[in-house]
Amino acid sequence: MGKIFFGNDYNRTGHPAVIEAIARTQGDAFGGYGIDTISEKASAKILEACGAPEGAVYFMVGGTPANVTVIDALLRPWEGVISPASGHINVHETGAPEHTGHKVLPAASGDGKITAAQIEAIVDEYENSGTLEHMVTPRMVYISQPTEYGTRYDLAELEAIAAICRTRGLYLFIDGARLGYALGSEGNDVFLPDLARLADAFSIGGTKCGALFGEAVVFPDKTLAPHFRSSIKQNLGMLAKGWLISAQFDALFTDDLYLRITAKASQQALRIARAAEAAGIARYIDSPTNQQFLVLTRKQHERLAERFVVQFIEAGPGGTDVVRVCTSWSTEDADVAALIDALRVL
Amino acid sequence: MGKIFFGNDYNRTGHPAVIEAIARTQGDAFGGYGIDTISEKASAKILEACGAPEGAVYFMVGGTPANVTVIDALLRPWEGVISPASGHINVHETGAPEHTGHKVLPAASGDGKITAAQIEAIVDEYENSGTLEHMVTPRMVYISQPTEYGTRYDLAELEAIAAICRTRGLYLFIDGARLGYALGSEGNDVFLPDLARLADAFSIGGTKCGALFGEAVVFPDKTLAPHFRSSIKQNLGMLAKGWLISAQFDALFTDDLYLRITAKASQQALRIARAAEAAGIARYIDSPTNQQFLVLTRKQHERLAERFVVQFIEAGPGGTDVVRVCTSWSTEDADVAALIDALRVL
Amino acid sequence: MGKIFFGNDYNRTGHPAVIEAIARTQGDAFGGYGIDTISEKASAKILEACGAPEGAVYFMVGGTPANVTVIDALLRPWEGVISPASGHINVHETGAPEHTGHKVLPAASGDGKITAAQIEAIVDEYENSGTLEHMVTPRMVYISQPTEYGTRYDLAELEAIAAICRTRGLYLFIDGARLGYALGSEGNDVFLPDLARLADAFSIGGTKCGALFGEAVVFPDKTLAPHFRSSIKQNLGMLAKGWLISAQFDALFTDDLYLRITAKASQQALRIARAAEAAGIARYIDSPTNQQFLVLTRKQHERLAERFVVQFIEAGPGGTDVVRVCTSWSTEDADVAALIDALRVL
Amino acid sequence: MGKIFFGNDYNRTGHPAVIEAIARTQGDAFGGYGIDTISEKASAKILEACGAPEGAVYFMVGGTPANVTVIDALLRPWEGVISPASGHINVHETGAPEHTGHKVLPAASGDGKITAAQIEAIVDEYENSGTLEHMVTPRMVYISQPTEYGTRYDLAELEAIAAICRTRGLYLFIDGARLGYALGSEGNDVFLPDLARLADAFSIGGTKCGALFGEAVVFPDKTLAPHFRSSIKQNLGMLAKGWLISAQFDALFTDDLYLRITAKASQQALRIARAAEAAGIARYIDSPTNQQFLVLTRKQHERLAERFVVQFIEAGPGGTDVVRVCTSWSTEDADVAALIDALRVL
Repeated sequence: MGKIFFGNDYNRTGHPAVIEAIARTQGDAFGGYGIDTISEKASAKILEACGAPEGAVYFMVGGTPANVTVIDALLRPWEGVISPASGHINVHETGAPEHTGHKVLPAASGDGKITAAQIEAIVDEYENSGTLEHMVTPRMVYISQPTEYGTRYDLAELEAIAAICRTRGLYLFIDGARLGYALGSEGNDVFLPDLARLADAFSIGGTKCGALFGEAVVFPDKTLAPHFRSSIKQNLGMLAKGWLISAQFDALFTDDLYLRITAKASQQALRIARAAEAAGIARYIDSPTNQQFLVLTRKQHERLAERFVVQFIEAGPGGTDVVRVCTSWSTEDADVAALIDALRVL
Repeated sequence: MGKIFFGNDYNRTGHPAVIEAIARTQGDAFGGYGIDTISEKASAKILEACGAPEGAVYFMVGGTPANVTVIDALLRPWEGVISPASGHINVHETGAPEHTGHKVLPAASGDGKITAAQIEAIVDEYENSGTLEHMVTPRMVYISQPTEYGTRYDLAELEAIAAICRTRGLYLFIDGARLGYALGSEGNDVFLPDLARLADAFSIGGTKCGALFGEAVVFPDKTLAPHFRSSIKQNLGMLAKGWLISAQFDALFTDDLYLRITAKASQQALRIARAAEAAGIARYIDSPTNQQFLVLTRKQHERLAERFVVQFIEAGPGGTDVVRVCTSWSTEDADVAALIDALRVL
Repeated sequence: MGKIFFGNDYNRTGHPAVIEAIARTQGDAFGGYGIDTISEKASAKILEACGAPEGAVYFMVGGTPANVTVIDALLRPWEGVISPASGHINVHETGAPEHTGHKVLPAASGDGKITAAQIEAIVDEYENSGTLEHMVTPRMVYISQPTEYGTRYDLAELEAIAAICRTRGLYLFIDGARLGYALGSEGNDVFLPDLARLADAFSIGGTKCGALFGEAVVFPDKTLAPHFRSSIKQNLGMLAKGWLISAQFDALFTDDLYLRITAKASQQALRIARAAEAAGIARYIDSPTNQQFLVLTRKQHERLAERFVVQFIEAGPGGTDVVRVCTSWSTEDADVAALIDALRVL
Repeated sequence: MGKIFFGNDYNRTGHPAVIEAIARTQGDAFGGYGIDTISEKASAKILEACGAPEGAVYFMVGGTPANVTVIDALLRPWEGVISPASGHINVHETGAPEHTGHKVLPAASGDGKITAAQIEAIVDEYENSGTLEHMVTPRMVYISQPTEYGTRYDLAELEAIAAICRTRGLYLFIDGARLGYALGSEGNDVFLPDLARLADAFSIGGTKCGALFGEAVVFPDKTLAPHFRSSIKQNLGMLAKGWLISAQFDALFTDDLYLRITAKASQQALRIARAAEAAGIARYIDSPTNQQFLVLTRKQHERLAERFVVQFIEAGPGGTDVVRVCTSWSTEDADVAALIDALRVL
């Protein structure tokens, strides 16, 4: 019998309703390159959910293309993007932002988040440098919600970041590759209309949240990036059969499917977290979302790995292993129960 | 009732067997980013069909990413790629090759093809220029099979081009976005093992040949691009759920599905071509594949467009319209018959 | 004794007055990176000569950096620059424009010039393509005055090009690497204020016109490129000791030195051209400036090369050689007389 | 009367012997683009001084072009360069390395230096990440000698770094924009042959060390970058009159001029440093080269600035100002004496 999978949140093809939505398109002919009736309909649904009637939605194949295309479409060559040092664009995109010519300006971060004060300090340092033309101009802030460490900005934090961005002339771009897992997590107070109000651009992740693939990039003000489709094509992200992505989002944004399946996963993760703590296992970071980072002894790690697929992240304090346990829209309650049982006796 | 669609070959979601292949993956967990059992199996099938046991196959999301990533992975910054002026990389990729820093060196082409002699002349001109370091070094030849005008290289032509490439130190890259429509077309003498023997890299197109999306990039010698996966990720083409593409190719390369459905479309196109000629309608270019370019009077064009979706390409001689009629794997014989009837009385 | 040099116009260090101007700066300390009193003064002189009080002048190290930085500062990534196929940016800059991500859109040209009609046709073709987002958007026109073939736009031609650029939303950029040789050439009717009135940016070449090195890039409207200094630095063209270039331009723009020394060279070239024609030697192109292209038999070429350094350009009609004879600000009348004598008996 | 200048080391045109060397070229014609007799001769001198007979020397216009071209010529797009966070390429080149597509991987540094252990840790982290293709591959180490903080690697430190680079497959590139000031500084044990033995490429700075402009890039093994001249041209650094740079280096490498004038400046700086310490003024960093960083109270800073041009660098501890005092080849002993007198009573 195979191991029970908690290794990541992109190991299954997609939610049945999403696959069904694709299969349903089989009988019809559609316009190419994202100009089709399903894309129109799905865009309208998303903009309504965001309370952003003047916005635009672009359906992208994946998270890295979404991030890089937004950066490339908005920044001029001498402008850079402030990011947590641990941010996806700084660590896990094989230098794709730099490949299109844009420097990432990293800000130190322990838990995946940065603060308004850090952003302001970077801009101050630049403006006071006396060597403006010799330095990259900070022009955008990139953050993710939730972060790669599963943490979450609360509304006050986001408001503060957005305020600094406006004051200092920075775009705010929020990477929502796992957005669902934040939206429905316990205690969350940041919802789609908040993102639309505070960010210049943000993405709603599909790949990790029930879709086969695809992210929706939302510009709350559609006039901000009038040439975005040219930029998508140039950045290699224009899917010939664009309806394949929008049909999935149409399904995910029907009857709150997106929220329901991701909220459940975050609740499962929290149950695991509490069971771990009850068993005396420390969490590396206090995450309210679907990724939990447990600090295990080598022996505990080995024992857990006998029955469960989990992911080693990095060496922890005192010879321990930091191990990621990841739920997703496809995680079954029985598997969570099995994991909790295992943690109790680890 | 809607019009009958001959507008392009990417207007339908995908062949039922392909959709079924995706749906069948629903119950299992897979490794991410193209490292999975289905990708292994599909690669092996393709390499066998190509007679290239030492090769490597990479599954890419689309044709433009495939083209640009191959160029970017093989060329150094000061090297360029020779292409027919009408080549996809030169006209319809929004400058994506240049966005990654590579100049396209266009060669004049009336029918979408270029010759070995043209290639040699470009290299000669460069080498005799006396200003080597001031010019882009020709280092790759890009051609497509079939071309954007539906034409096809025969084996002798390809052998000649490959010979020049070897003599003059150029990579040969063949874009097979519509490859199926050439492979099964009447009189074709270039097959997968020929491509594997003559090209340094080539693609087998899925998007236009029965798949929902996806192209297979084949390197007959896998040592040629050892870092290709890094290049895919950096060029924004790394799909998290890589098995979604390989499962489609696995289906297409089972029981010759790929060849059967595309060969049928090319035959349909030829029936249309012959009917047009019988009706006194000239063809702009003599194409043996699924794209036919008819020279119509404005009135004929309008009359045809009442019942059929066709695509205006460019102004033809004497005030005529050059109109593309495109069959595909999804074209029904009844629709072909209706079109032929219409052409007879146009 | 050495051969007499007509090989190019950048073979001598610089005009004595220019070297003297540099030497005179020896005793003083200056601000770095082009922010200094000499640069201010030289800019003011140039803007006055151009009748462009609202303009800005940037002193660049060379012609290729000037061209590429202007393109990179003004264009967005999905926008391209129309250029004669023979234009310097398309042929002799090792793909530097593409290295910074910008596609050059070549227009056919026999004599180095293109027409307003050609430009309009390219824009029309783009706008009527129906695939806007798949193509590079034409957004700038690059021409050179005089061209690489020594030819020259007259005022009516330039007015027509500028009118099309304004109507169709294109920047007009004029590369004046050899501008002096056009300004003072026989029959010229395009002067600095015309360039300032018609172009969005143009360069005044120093390297080939009496300076040791350096070009002045003029934006008649300084608000067009407010971040140009950041772009200069990023494009590797920011000289630490900026006054070294401006001091040279200050000397060249004192007492009309720039115009005098280049006008003399164009007159010398014309004397050579007329002598050649009198001797029955055809000119490949009718050039009024310092570059003359003679069509010689192989034997004539060899005989000429015994005593003179000239440059083979390309094979001419009927087995002839097209050979460039180039005067410059440093060409002596005695050498011109010797060449004329030689042509008479060739 | 003007203030006495200690603001930077590039405020004067150039050493008289260097200006004279340029002026002496006035009477002759030279081959263009760095292919000339002077460049040959100066290269030979430099290679001899480096004990690197199999090397190649390229004369570049400035330090930033030298850095970026070396990076761009050696790295593939998915490879990155490790640099001290304070390194010139990471902070003061307006993102030029990223503009050509290369990510800088910053390593924390307090004094401008990094260690072999830090380099190894970065490579280890990459290799153990489990996500190789999602991360930039570390492939080069960039350090400067002396650093931007005036500090200096000793031979043992350099040997250790070079050893790690060889073991882990990294190029070692040493930026010597101020190299002279290290070579002749008190206690230095790293000389040109050491650099040639340990580095894959290094630069010998002219701009700040007596030249008007220009850096010599040395590849101890000339086969490492056979296409470097194409890369220079593409990266906008090909000077038409290349002899202008090599003539300067020829003069600087005659009779040890380069070493003598920079060694004197480092000795002057050390006298200033000791006078400061004698006066109870702390140094921010213990620099043995021409840049000294003094920690002054605001009042001391203001008093000093009345008579001397110095450069504010950053806020120091306890409300102090960190102020740079910079000597150079042009600093006069009388000015040093005046500064020392001023420091005594500050």
